[in-house]
Amino acid sequence: MTIHVINPNSTQQVTDGIDAAIAPMRDRSPVPIACHTLAEGPPGIETQAHVDGVVGPLLTLADSLKPDASAYVVACFSDPGLAALREASRVPVLGIAESAYLLAMALGQRFGILSLGRASIQRHIRYLGALGIMDRLAADLPLGLGVLELAEADTTLARLTEVGKTLRDHHGADVLITGCAGMAPYRRHLEQATGLPVVDPCQAAVSAAIGRVALAACDTN
Amino acid sequence: MTIHVINPNSTQQVTDGIDAAIAPMRDRSPVPIACHTLAEGPPGIETQAHVDGVVGPLLTLADSLKPDASAYVVACFSDPGLAALREASRVPVLGIAESAYLLAMALGQRFGILSLGRASIQRHIRYLGALGIMDRLAADLPLGLGVLELAEADTTLARLTEVGKTLRDHHGADVLITGCAGMAPYRRHLEQATGLPVVDPCQAAVSAAIGRVALAACDTN
Amino acid sequence: MTIHVINPNSTQQVTDGIDAAIAPMRDRSPVPIACHTLAEGPPGIETQAHVDGVVGPLLTLADSLKPDASAYVVACFSDPGLAALREASRVPVLGIAESAYLLAMALGQRFGILSLGRASIQRHIRYLGALGIMDRLAADLPLGLGVLELAEADTTLARLTEVGKTLRDHHGADVLITGCAGMAPYRRHLEQATGLPVVDPCQAAVSAAIGRVALAACDTN
Amino acid sequence: MTIHVINPNSTQQVTDGIDAAIAPMRDRSPVPIACHTLAEGPPGIETQAHVDGVVGPLLTLADSLKPDASAYVVACFSDPGLAALREASRVPVLGIAESAYLLAMALGQRFGILSLGRASIQRHIRYLGALGIMDRLAADLPLGLGVLELAEADTTLARLTEVGKTLRDHHGADVLITGCAGMAPYRRHLEQATGLPVVDPCQAAVSAAIGRVALAACDTN
Amino acid sequence: MTIHVINPNSTQQVTDGIDAAIAPMRDRSPVPIACHTLAEGPPGIETQAHVDGVVGPLLTLADSLKPDASAYVVACFSDPGLAALREASRVPVLGIAESAYLLAMALGQRFGILSLGRASIQRHIRYLGALGIMDRLAADLPLGLGVLELAEADTTLARLTEVGKTLRDHHGADVLITGCAGMAPYRRHLEQATGLPVVDPCQAAVSAAIGRVALAACDTN
Amino acid sequence: MTIHVINPNSTQQVTDGIDAAIAPMRDRSPVPIACHTLAEGPPGIETQAHVDGVVGPLLTLADSLKPDASAYVVACFSDPGLAALREASRVPVLGIAESAYLLAMALGQRFGILSLGRASIQRHIRYLGALGIMDRLAADLPLGLGVLELAEADTTLARLTEVGKTLRDHHGADVLITGCAGMAPYRRHLEQATGLPVVDPCQAAVSAAIGRVALAACDTN
Repeated sequence: MTIHVINPNSTQQVTDGIDAAIAPMRDRSPVPIACHTLAEGPPGIETQAHVDGVVGPLLTLADSLKPDASAYVVACFSDPGLAALREASRVPVLGIAESAYLLAMALGQRFGILSLGRASIQRHIRYLGALGIMDRLAADLPLGLGVLELAEADTTLARLTEVGKTLRDHHGADVLITGCAGMAPYRRHLEQATGLPVVDPCQAAVSAAIGRVALAACDTN
Repeated sequence: MTIHVINPNSTQQVTDGIDAAIAPMRDRSPVPIACHTLAEGPPGIETQAHVDGVVGPLLTLADSLKPDASAYVVACFSDPGLAALREASRVPVLGIAESAYLLAMALGQRFGILSLGRASIQRHIRYLGALGIMDRLAADLPLGLGVLELAEADTTLARLTEVGKTLRDHHGADVLITGCAGMAPYRRHLEQATGLPVVDPCQAAVSAAIGRVALAACDTN
Repeated sequence: MTIHVINPNSTQQVTDGIDAAIAPMRDRSPVPIACHTLAEGPPGIETQAHVDGVVGPLLTLADSLKPDASAYVVACFSDPGLAALREASRVPVLGIAESAYLLAMALGQRFGILSLGRASIQRHIRYLGALGIMDRLAADLPLGLGVLELAEADTTLARLTEVGKTLRDHHGADVLITGCAGMAPYRRHLEQATGLPVVDPCQAAVSAAIGRVALAACDTN
Repeated sequence: MTIHVINPNSTQQVTDGIDAAIAPMRDRSPVPIACHTLAEGPPGIETQAHVDGVVGPLLTLADSLKPDASAYVVACFSDPGLAALREASRVPVLGIAESAYLLAMALGQRFGILSLGRASIQRHIRYLGALGIMDRLAADLPLGLGVLELAEADTTLARLTEVGKTLRDHHGADVLITGCAGMAPYRRHLEQATGLPVVDPCQAAVSAAIGRVALAACDTN
Repeated sequence: MTIHVINPNSTQQVTDGIDAAIAPMRDRSPVPIACHTLAEGPPGIETQAHVDGVVGPLLTLADSLKPDASAYVVACFSDPGLAALREASRVPVLGIAESAYLLAMALGQRFGILSLGRASIQRHIRYLGALGIMDRLAADLPLGLGVLELAEADTTLARLTEVGKTLRDHHGADVLITGCAGMAPYRRHLEQATGLPVVDPCQAAVSAAIGRVALAACDTN
Repeated sequence: MTIHVINPNSTQQVTDGIDAAIAPMRDRSPVPIACHTLAEGPPGIETQAHVDGVVGPLLTLADSLKPDASAYVVACFSDPGLAALREASRVPVLGIAESAYLLAMALGQRFGILSLGRASIQRHIRYLGALGIMDRLAADLPLGLGVLELAEADTTLARLTEVGKTLRDHHGADVLITGCAGMAPYRRHLEQATGLPVVDPCQAAVSAAIGRVALAACDTN
């Protein structure tokens, strides 16, 4: 059996980054963890049309993985297809955004989100409302960075630190969430720079998936 | 120019019902109102996979109607593709669920929803949360009826009345929403039986679209 | 039949401004739109005592207009007498604040309000709470302008732009509402300056009234 | 100096009932407590037009009492004119509804309201929303009694007990509020019948006024 | 290293029940799981004084376990000492109530809680408010059972089923939580009887602890 | 009979400061007011372990005062032991934080809190959530001062004024709460500097206790 992590965009480098981010957990997982790229996805999920558009192929890929699936992780911070995949699956289905929020709620009282750009924030707020946890949000601020710019470590870390401190000092955040799958390499630096716990969504979701796979033992024993 | 109402399921009879429900407004609309059936949709939208699955063809159909579109109405109570179509359009895009909620908020303090079955309620609650209006919900109760059963007028009206009175008397609703495009023929009977205003979502959305088409005059004059 | 817009203050110039703001919609309305000044009102509605004080004469004026009233619009951003007039009327009654909020909720996820001065904000917040939509508010900020100063176009537009950008950049607003009947002439400039949709409350309410007059056809046909 | 309690309806018997309800507190008040009837008010405040209509004469009466006013209590469960009177006064102004809610919040986690009829509940909910305390409401249920029927002790107490137990057992209330000035004589019976603390709004407000008069000593000493 | 589960009451049988409930997860945990009884605790935690009273000895016991602690689980549905233990620990600290809520939020939209008696519900509601998740609560209903009565399987299961169905049918719950450590043996029966997922709080918390122990690998690798 | 105010830390100077703050109310109280120091408490209550740790000795002290207790006031802004003491007492029990919040809710629409340091804010937010009044919070900002630094009047007042103005101008506060028992001497200066009402929590709680002692007369007469 396997925890299947599906990156719903078609960029293999993103999948590789996710794989690197969650790799340290492999030794502590009761089952293997496999990362997949959705070939039919767009290079990056940037619009609501992208979010809705990947659901069909995502369901198809998940279905093909069903025989050995212990759990699924949908690895895009918009949690595309999460409800649909849950309808179709008997095993746990985790979204990286939902998992990040639920983990952050156990780490602090109000979380701050660092989003790449302004465009996704409206979508995040809708989702936080759907989850009924708006009172746990400190603020969701844009970094003003494109996905490609994330590769430039110095500027990215400087900007993450600046916005992280604003979330902490002006908005009362006591835990931070990096609102994108590609920021995992900066997580620990950001923790040190701000003194706050920082949640990487992919790590949060795989961690939750491991817990859920363990929990599933209670259904059969 | 035209208000385009798109029924995202493929059942022409449903589209015909919507057309009949909104027909009385045609004389009071500044532009024609055309109702369309989404040929690629499922016969009925019953699952989250259906909701997500129609977005692609819905966007395509809407795009083909763009040259004379004054406004779009997405005529399914799950408002599939609403955010995506708004991203893609410069003209007003109305969802029948959102429109029903916003209208009900001007008609009473707490609305009750009459849903066909239990399965859709979880989806409605997520949406009400995303809209930030959970405090305006009295309750969302299932009728326990299938779409086909709606055709039997006596049983349907009896059940609508029973659940409507429960919403009024036990949950404090002072306005009701029929949570499905197919209940318009019963709206006025339900108003008489309960003494409460009853919102038909398609009528609400077309009414809002008419208002928005009028409003658009302020952008150009 | 007529949509009657009632300015509950006694300043004819304000009524003239409202008339100009909604004039472009006349061609798209199924019925005429008439604007009225409440002679018994104060020159401007600035205090809670003003809000409560105009209700009596407002009800009297509305009653005198009843024979040909298709709908009423109460054209003050405190929505004075809205609940009372609804009790007394069988036709739709729209408040410009409520209408602005409900329209903004379909245009963005969090609205920012530009209020003349600090004094009215407490009243707005109470009202947003009564409407159950506090989670949709980005912020309500004072312009620090008096009604008379609105006439100076350059300073007003500069201040609107500055506060509008603060609402967008620091508070996450993705739609703006001008919290006063007299700012309509600046609406489109503010849209261009901020890149956000801007709602003029009087236009929002008349637009909603047109939709409601259309909807009323479903009650009689 | 005096705590002035103003019954904004014109029925002296109601004022007498309020006076009797708060009489036991006189010995423990630092200043006298005087109850007044608003001659210009309607016999009972039943509609929103009544609520708005009494504000003008209420302000006038309060102004005439200003020379020796330590505090004002507005003794109608719709808190008419509360915000306006606060604007006009330098001394504490208490509303009986707000005071009842704030007291109930210190006595239990979720309060149940026993309202005379259905008509006032919509108004209460708007107010609870404005106060931002909807999550503290268990439910607001109608007794289905008219003001005159309150005089029949046996039926009234039976109905209060029945609805009180419903609030406790079906809605999770752990404290009750009698939503009308005329139910004070039944308060202690209702406490015994339900085992829950019961708040009489007039007693709550006068109690709060006594506390506020004491507090005012901190401003001058 | 070890996951330490601390039952803060002094009844060894309760600890044994918890151990049995979580035993199936041992094979899937990266570290051993040890269950402890707090000798200084009361036989059962029934009052707020009990909740507050166990914090001191709980901190002492946790401190003594620190050398090999990978994570702590506080195994009482009032989560006593959770915030204090988090302050004092560098490793993850899980409360069974918080963990149950966070898990339930990934399993359904609104959870129902089955509590032993009415007394604890007020405490639960305060806690749900502190967690900011009141909108995810369907209802919290008392079983009217004492801890000892839980041993009688037939009556307990009958009562659980009855209240579970009420939560599902009258309150809209789509996931259930057993609000007490001692109901784990009935979890799967209740799932079958209601058709809803049922969360046992101890299982939820140990599952989360396993996930968090895995996640901690990302801090050191 | 007596209102017993218990300072749950062991610093007599703090108790003396509380006594001085509430002294002006003694002449207007129906019963004497006595201030007590909890010898078993820590010098200051700074951590959650402190909060939980004082509950036991607090209950013991309160029990020893029971014979002549009219009411208890727990005089620490974390309201330690409030729920436990309420369980154990038949007379009113007031917490200074809860009392400050409830008073502030009658003085303005959104309150700002001035906290000594960042550490307590997370605790405050949890509590505001438990009270269900998050929508009434403007913001809770740290002064960045230690308890000892409060003695330096010039710097303290300068910092209070600066943060108070930020709460007013950037967060929309229309009433302020000093989030610590030791700031009473600065209350009136802060009112003058900001133009907003300022609530001292100890004064708020003793004021409420006086009102509750008066109210108790309605139970016995």
